[in-house]
Amino acid sequence: MTDEQRKRAVVLLSGGLDSATTLAAARSQGIECHTLALDYGQRHNAELQAAARISAALGASSHKVISIDLRAIGGSALTDDIEVPETRSEGIPVTYVPARNTVLLAIALGFAETLEAGRIYIGVNAVDYSGYPDCRPAFIAAFQDLARVAIARSSRHDAVEILTPLIHLTKAEIIQMGTGLDVDYRLTVSCYQADAQGRACGRCDSCEIRREGFLAAGLPDPTRYA
Amino acid sequence: MTDEQRKRAVVLLSGGLDSATTLAAARSQGIECHTLALDYGQRHNAELQAAARISAALGASSHKVISIDLRAIGGSALTDDIEVPETRSEGIPVTYVPARNTVLLAIALGFAETLEAGRIYIGVNAVDYSGYPDCRPAFIAAFQDLARVAIARSSRHDAVEILTPLIHLTKAEIIQMGTGLDVDYRLTVSCYQADAQGRACGRCDSCEIRREGFLAAGLPDPTRYA
Repeated sequence: MTDEQRKRAVVLLSGGLDSATTLAAARSQGIECHTLALDYGQRHNAELQAAARISAALGASSHKVISIDLRAIGGSALTDDIEVPETRSEGIPVTYVPARNTVLLAIALGFAETLEAGRIYIGVNAVDYSGYPDCRPAFIAAFQDLARVAIARSSRHDAVEILTPLIHLTKAEIIQMGTGLDVDYRLTVSCYQADAQGRACGRCDSCEIRREGFLAAGLPDPTRYA
Repeated sequence: MTDEQRKRAVVLLSGGLDSATTLAAARSQGIECHTLALDYGQRHNAELQAAARISAALGASSHKVISIDLRAIGGSALTDDIEVPETRSEGIPVTYVPARNTVLLAIALGFAETLEAGRIYIGVNAVDYSGYPDCRPAFIAAFQDLARVAIARSSRHDAVEILTPLIHLTKAEIIQMGTGLDVDYRLTVSCYQADAQGRACGRCDSCEIRREGFLAAGLPDPTRYA
């Protein structure tokens, strides 16, 4: 891998707070970032519009949206017609999309190969999160091992590196980090049921975790609520 | 996992010879099979029609097609406007789709979770194959490790099992096995540039490997050539 390839990255961008902060972190280290958003039939399309705006605002070199209809395999309130719950639940919430981060990283890996990019950034977080199995360090480590053998360019010594700068941070620490990197959090949409203008419901799991994060960070919450 | 879940499987079906044989192998063991085909913008759409016919002919319980536009990440003669080569090439051929089997298995894993299926079958083969990195045993082993930590149902002891009944067989052995299981190979399409009726070109890598397989198996080649 050349130095140029090592400094080129695919950055997964959901339109939410965490992935925007991840992109800002990569950019602050001089990484050439190519952002990738997944249109997986989610109800909150406002996320996709937010992802495109964040990509441009933070100086990514390109932005792509890949469509995949995960509704066909069902199983989640984010893509089915199940009601999004408004109280925080125990265990794995119904908003879990089956194998979502596995699918996202698989597509990012293919894109990294085409782009000759040496890195993939994903904004997973195992502290203030919703309990999804594919946000944990063990999952990322297993995907890193897979990346070493999955693609034509792979070799044990020169694999695409999976980077997760937020994985051990609290939501408050993420917000402080992003604020220091001039992320405009008004552009981001975290809500599971944002309206067409990207305004948050203020009541779902994701809204609650986000609001508590700004509070704990001692920073004003710029979220646009409906 | 219950015994019922252990006997339920997602079977990846491409419309080709290998995945049809894999489905027949699973069915011959009394497995309840749910077939999954990926529409990744491939030029040879005849494959998808073949997959649906094979699924029905071999008694699968359901068949789904998931659309994902891998053309957006480029890099392969199967999805781009690059000419498909007609002579066998050295190393990784240009018909390689970046991270294709990683994407396929990721989606199958999500589907297995929704279905409560204990198995995923994929017809990869590391003997008479085109040199793709994601057909090798090391790749499958790494994905099996990932499956243990990737989904809500996963646990070290009760993970979805990734099964590859063809991985160590020659093409001739695969054809002999499928013939013994009454697979109608006329239904299958292996050609990288089959016409709209599913007739093979007879000249690409994939056609050549297939034809040599029937020859070595000592069985008549039922392939419909254009």
